[in-house]
Amino acid sequence: MTLIEALNAIGELDAEMMQKAQIRLDSLTKPLGSLGRLEEIVKQLAGITGELLPCVKNKKIIIMCADNGVVEEGVSSCPKSVTSSVTQNFLKGFTGVNVLSRHSGADTVVVDVGVDDDIDCEGIFGRKIRKGTWNIAKGPAMTRDEAIKAIETGIEIVGILKEQGVNLLGTGEMGVGNTTTSSAVASVLTGFEIGEMVGRGAGLTQEGLINKAEVIKKAIDINKPDATDPIDVLAKVGGFDIAALTGCFLGAAAYRLPIMIDGFISAAAALAAIKIKPQCKDYILPSHGSAEPGNKRIMEVLGMTPMLMLEMRLGEGSGAALAFHVIDAAVAAYREMGTFGDAQIEQYKPLA
Amino acid sequence: MTLIEALNAIGELDAEMMQKAQIRLDSLTKPLGSLGRLEEIVKQLAGITGELLPCVKNKKIIIMCADNGVVEEGVSSCPKSVTSSVTQNFLKGFTGVNVLSRHSGADTVVVDVGVDDDIDCEGIFGRKIRKGTWNIAKGPAMTRDEAIKAIETGIEIVGILKEQGVNLLGTGEMGVGNTTTSSAVASVLTGFEIGEMVGRGAGLTQEGLINKAEVIKKAIDINKPDATDPIDVLAKVGGFDIAALTGCFLGAAAYRLPIMIDGFISAAAALAAIKIKPQCKDYILPSHGSAEPGNKRIMEVLGMTPMLMLEMRLGEGSGAALAFHVIDAAVAAYREMGTFGDAQIEQYKPLA
Repeated sequence: MTLIEALNAIGELDAEMMQKAQIRLDSLTKPLGSLGRLEEIVKQLAGITGELLPCVKNKKIIIMCADNGVVEEGVSSCPKSVTSSVTQNFLKGFTGVNVLSRHSGADTVVVDVGVDDDIDCEGIFGRKIRKGTWNIAKGPAMTRDEAIKAIETGIEIVGILKEQGVNLLGTGEMGVGNTTTSSAVASVLTGFEIGEMVGRGAGLTQEGLINKAEVIKKAIDINKPDATDPIDVLAKVGGFDIAALTGCFLGAAAYRLPIMIDGFISAAAALAAIKIKPQCKDYILPSHGSAEPGNKRIMEVLGMTPMLMLEMRLGEGSGAALAFHVIDAAVAAYREMGTFGDAQIEQYKPLA
Repeated sequence: MTLIEALNAIGELDAEMMQKAQIRLDSLTKPLGSLGRLEEIVKQLAGITGELLPCVKNKKIIIMCADNGVVEEGVSSCPKSVTSSVTQNFLKGFTGVNVLSRHSGADTVVVDVGVDDDIDCEGIFGRKIRKGTWNIAKGPAMTRDEAIKAIETGIEIVGILKEQGVNLLGTGEMGVGNTTTSSAVASVLTGFEIGEMVGRGAGLTQEGLINKAEVIKKAIDINKPDATDPIDVLAKVGGFDIAALTGCFLGAAAYRLPIMIDGFISAAAALAAIKIKPQCKDYILPSHGSAEPGNKRIMEVLGMTPMLMLEMRLGEGSGAALAFHVIDAAVAAYREMGTFGDAQIEQYKPLA
C-alpha cells in the first residue's frame, strides 16, 4: 500500500458498533461508567474493528531501528554503536522491551530502517533506507523521497502483520540521538519552544542538554522545515525511525488496527501522522507518560492522557508493552463480567 | 497477632538488600534509572522481603465487606442490599475485581466483617463483627473495642495468607455508603475541608452530593472524633470495612508483605494505618488514581503517586488488581533483562 493509498483508505470509526458496545458496558454489574477509561478503550476498539467483542490476543510491538547523523554533534550520552548492539539484542530476547512484551503476552517485530551497520540477524526485517541519516545540524536528514519510503515501510510492516492476524500494535524504536530529532520534529509541528521540548534522553548532563537545544535550533534554522508540511519536517529534521513509525500510525488506521504510542519518539511520530491525516487519531491509544518533557507537550496537543505514570525513559516500546495489559484487562472486564441479568440485582440507579 | 503485637513487629526495610538490588538494576542493559518507578518498586520489594530476587507470584486481593448505618441518610445511589448481593457475587467469580484479578494472575479473598445479611457462601471468611455499623449522623459507628476487633481481623487475615505463601497483597472493599465514611475519616485525619474530600461515589446527583457533605459534617460535629487518635476516628465516623483494611495495612507491615492501595476507601484505611504507625508506609504501594476527589488529597498527603490513571471508580479492589501487573512487570524486567556483561556493550555513560 502506498502512502496515497493508505491516506485514502483511512475512514471513520464504526459509530453503530461503538453504541452497541456502550449498551453492553451498561449491562455489566457495576455503577454506570465506573470502569472509567477501560470503557472508553473498549468502545474505541469496537469502533476500530467493527466487532462487538473485539479480540486483542495477537499483539506485536514494531521496533523501528535507525541511526542519526546528528550524533556527531555530541547530543547523546550513548556512543552511536549502541544502536546496532541493542537492535541485535532485541533479536536475542533479553532487552527491556523483550521482557515487558513477553510479560504482556506480546511479541516484538524488529525493523532495520537505517542502522549504520551491516545487520543480518535471523528474524529482522531488513528495510534499510540508508546507513543513518545526514547530520540535521548541517542540512536535511534525508530527501523527501526517502521520507516517503520510510513512511511506506511502516505501512508495509503493518500490512504484513495484519495479514498474519495481529490485532493490537505497539510502537517502539532504537536510534541513538532520536530524542534530538523528535524534539526538532515536535517543536516545529506544535510551535512549542525548543526549550520546552528538549530533555535529557538517556542521561545527558546539564551542559549536554544546553548543547542539544542549540543543535536543534541550528537544525531548524538551517533547514527551515515547513510546519504545514509534516513530510517536509520529517525529511529535514527527523529520522528514518520517526518517519517509519509515522507510517505505522497511518498504516494502522488504513488497515483498521488499534495502535499504541510508546514514549516521546513514538509520540512525535503519532503527531506527524495526525498532522498528515487527522482521522488517524481515532486509531491511536496513548500508553505511558514518559519522563521526557516533550512527551507531555505532545500529549496535551493531541488531547491524550497517558494510562501509566511510571517515569520510564527507556524507549524501545517498553511503555506500550506494559500498557498492553490495560487494553487486555479492559477487554477481559467487558467480555467476562456478569450482567445485571446474571447477578439478579437491579441496575444501580441514582436514588438521591 | 494482636494490634499491639503487630505494631511492635513493624520494623525498617532491609537497607542493605535495597542497595544490592540497586547494583543489580544498574547492571541491566539500559540507561541508568530508565525504568523509572519500576526500579523503585523492585527496591521496595527487596527491602520488604529481604530477598535480592523477590517473588510476587502468589497474589491476593483482600475484600472487606460491611454495611454502613449511615445509608439511611440517603448518601448513596445504591440500595443497601447491593452490599450483600455483590459480596455473594465475588464468590461466584464474575464481578469486576474477579475478572481483573484473574487477568493479573491473582485471586480474591472475601471477608464478611459486617454485612447486614446472613451470608453463608462457600469460601467466605465469616468475621462479622455486627450486621452493619450504627448511623454516624446520629452517634458513633461502633465502639472502640469493635474498631480494634475489626483492625485485628485485618491483621489475622494477612497472617493466614502469609502462612499460605502469599507474597503480594491488594486491598478491596464492598459496602454501600463507604465513600461517605471514608470521606469523614480522611477529612478528620488530613484536616482537609469536607467539600474537598467528598465525591459522587457510585453515581450521586448534585443534590445527593450536597446532602452527603452535610451528613458528613453532622457526623463529625456530633461525634467529635479525636484527630490525633486514628482508632477513635475509625470507631466514631468509619466503618468495619475501613477499620479491617487498616488492619490489613498494619498486618502486612508486621508480616513483611508488600500491600497495594486500591481506591479511595482503601486509601483512607492506609492513611489511618500510617497515622497509627508511620513506618508501615514503607510496605504500601499505590495503584490507580481513582475518580473520587478525596483519593487525590490522600495521595498528596502520603506523598504517593498512583501508577495508573484510568478514572476508575468501581472499588472492590479492581484498581489494585490491575496494578498487580505493573509490579509483576517490574520484577520480570529486573529478573530477566540481560546485563552489560551478557550484552557485550559498555555501560551507557554520559559523554556530553
